[in-house]
Amino acid sequence: MEQNRKIRVAITQGDTNGVGYELILKTFSTPEMLELCTPIVYGSPKIATYHRKALNMEEGNFTIINNAADAKEGRLNLMTCFDNEVKVELGTPTKESVESGIRALSSALADASKDVYDVLVLLPLQKDDALRFPGQQTFVDKALGTQSQQVVMNGCLRVAFMTSDIALKDVAARISQEGIKEQATRLFNTLRRDFRILNPRVAVLALNPTADGQEEKDVIAPAIAALEETPVKAFGPYAAEQFFGTAQFDAFDGILAMYHDQGILPLTSLLSSNDFPLISLYSLYSLNSLNSLNSLNSLIVTSLEDNPLFEQAGKGVADEQPLRQAIYTAIDAWRNRHDYDEPYANPLPKLYHEKRDESEKVRFAIPKKHENSIKERL
Amino acid sequence: MEQNRKIRVAITQGDTNGVGYELILKTFSTPEMLELCTPIVYGSPKIATYHRKALNMEEGNFTIINNAADAKEGRLNLMTCFDNEVKVELGTPTKESVESGIRALSSALADASKDVYDVLVLLPLQKDDALRFPGQQTFVDKALGTQSQQVVMNGCLRVAFMTSDIALKDVAARISQEGIKEQATRLFNTLRRDFRILNPRVAVLALNPTADGQEEKDVIAPAIAALEETPVKAFGPYAAEQFFGTAQFDAFDGILAMYHDQGILPLTSLLSSNDFPLISLYSLYSLNSLNSLNSLNSLIVTSLEDNPLFEQAGKGVADEQPLRQAIYTAIDAWRNRHDYDEPYANPLPKLYHEKRDESEKVRFAIPKKHENSIKERL
Repeated sequence: MEQNRKIRVAITQGDTNGVGYELILKTFSTPEMLELCTPIVYGSPKIATYHRKALNMEEGNFTIINNAADAKEGRLNLMTCFDNEVKVELGTPTKESVESGIRALSSALADASKDVYDVLVLLPLQKDDALRFPGQQTFVDKALGTQSQQVVMNGCLRVAFMTSDIALKDVAARISQEGIKEQATRLFNTLRRDFRILNPRVAVLALNPTADGQEEKDVIAPAIAALEETPVKAFGPYAAEQFFGTAQFDAFDGILAMYHDQGILPLTSLLSSNDFPLISLYSLYSLNSLNSLNSLNSLIVTSLEDNPLFEQAGKGVADEQPLRQAIYTAIDAWRNRHDYDEPYANPLPKLYHEKRDESEKVRFAIPKKHENSIKERL
Repeated sequence: MEQNRKIRVAITQGDTNGVGYELILKTFSTPEMLELCTPIVYGSPKIATYHRKALNMEEGNFTIINNAADAKEGRLNLMTCFDNEVKVELGTPTKESVESGIRALSSALADASKDVYDVLVLLPLQKDDALRFPGQQTFVDKALGTQSQQVVMNGCLRVAFMTSDIALKDVAARISQEGIKEQATRLFNTLRRDFRILNPRVAVLALNPTADGQEEKDVIAPAIAALEETPVKAFGPYAAEQFFGTAQFDAFDGILAMYHDQGILPLTSLLSSNDFPLISLYSLYSLNSLNSLNSLNSLIVTSLEDNPLFEQAGKGVADEQPLRQAIYTAIDAWRNRHDYDEPYANPLPKLYHEKRDESEKVRFAIPKKHENSIKERL
């Protein structure tokens, strides 16, 4: 990264008919945010203008660009991802509005390897069966050839999932020892690297309500025991009711839930009662390895865990705090990750002299295959 | 009920080594509660005294009785359910402490049909596999020959469950159209009768996280459609994440969850963040019928949805508000139910004359088989 260059934040527009543009316009209506970062909005300047007028907002510091590399500091850079007319129907998702959202997302992902931005923030775009759009996480993974772990956050509560939006009856069969070890390890690495928590503690939830079922005995407990042989500090399995009911979660930095609703319901319920927005951070892993070094320079992606909030669209009532929070989370993670990775990238020569054997050398050395990508990046 | 007699509240001691006695002693340490109701504690006066001394509390208005019919107004009536020595080990559940809890519960249930108390409040006693104690709800049902519906409450959030503490992998197979209709109807009746809500709205949750799985199409949606032919106002199926995340629950008086954690996690998470204690109300139904009239005079049972809180035992730090709340809930339900049932029990003669046909007569008439039990009760 060049000295003094502001961090570049790519933001996808999400669903054209939702509150995406409203959140973007509000977020960057104050100079502070433009001092913190350089935003590049993947979408359509025309649609942005439509939303601005619908909201009676003043013309801001817009700069229209056709190439993300042309983004200017101190400006809200609006990147043209498609030029065709898109009919905006505020408050109603349509084929056109979803398609334009997909186009914006595709353009952003096509730029992911070009070093034109540092972090990527996704505005809401719902899965659409008719358009074969599988949801943003799956779409990102397919486009980048990655397998991502989603960590959903509500304040200091950070939850990863063993299974996602699958049918409840299929959940039990998908829980394996290997899977738990892998996901707990990834969560542990994310907590250390992207959240700068020195010795993270990971809680593994039970699958069954009483935590004494077959899966706890045969799969979950043995996986946790196996993790004791590794640096990963994992504990459990904990019955979810007690875990969330008695605020046991306060003692942990991350939680591995066995299925979607088990992890998301406590988060959303707390959301209804506190002021934290629900934000996701995606850790991208290459498909064939657990090793965190393999994702050393992978992209940081965050998203808003909201629906596109169609019912608020065009009314000027949408709260932009969640988008600010998603941007802050991405920037913090980017900085933390670079701090964490630095000793690997630039090992201090004297370390080698002080040590008797070569083991430290191995620790700080960069595997050959990553050296280039690191150089490219720094 | 005799004129001016205070409502009689039976309270079981729960686990001897937990905070049960502490909650009881604190709750009735102020005169207001003894003005509201006549408490009958099923347990052991000896153990009560042990706890009182351990907590350095003054000797209160205790009256020791051996028969619940002897309970005195204005006194904390301690009923002797067992006379053997029970070693109290504060903070540790033991075989003895669970067994004494079971004995107290059994004594209370044996009195259920004797009209010696009006409502029953259960203090926490955990399921114990070694002692073959299946948990309080199942135990109550076996003892009384009933099939109860548990409604767990956190403030105005009231949740009933399609399945209870079963393995997650077995949940889907247990969800049937008939079952949903039955449980939604029971919840609707409880809301009308015990909570005095004139036109209750029941939300039915989806089983799968996205609410578009096979079970929603084949089972849950058809069950809700079938309920439209009945007086029961049921809506859904709602995806749980959105339902709790966007506070949709505010629009409903009751919620039917498909499995334990789906309903309990939002409740307990909200519990961590608001001041409402988690209370259960059990509606007891005779085993062979849906008809609410069949449970016209069934007992009102409430319980504290806490663990026995062993870690707080003997320290004097346990909060008695949840017990007060469980008692208030039971008393309110008792009054509401009697108000609701009154026109059925004492139909005004003139109603018959005003109406042209006999249908109203049918509505207000008491089925022969219930007539005796009502007389007995009133």
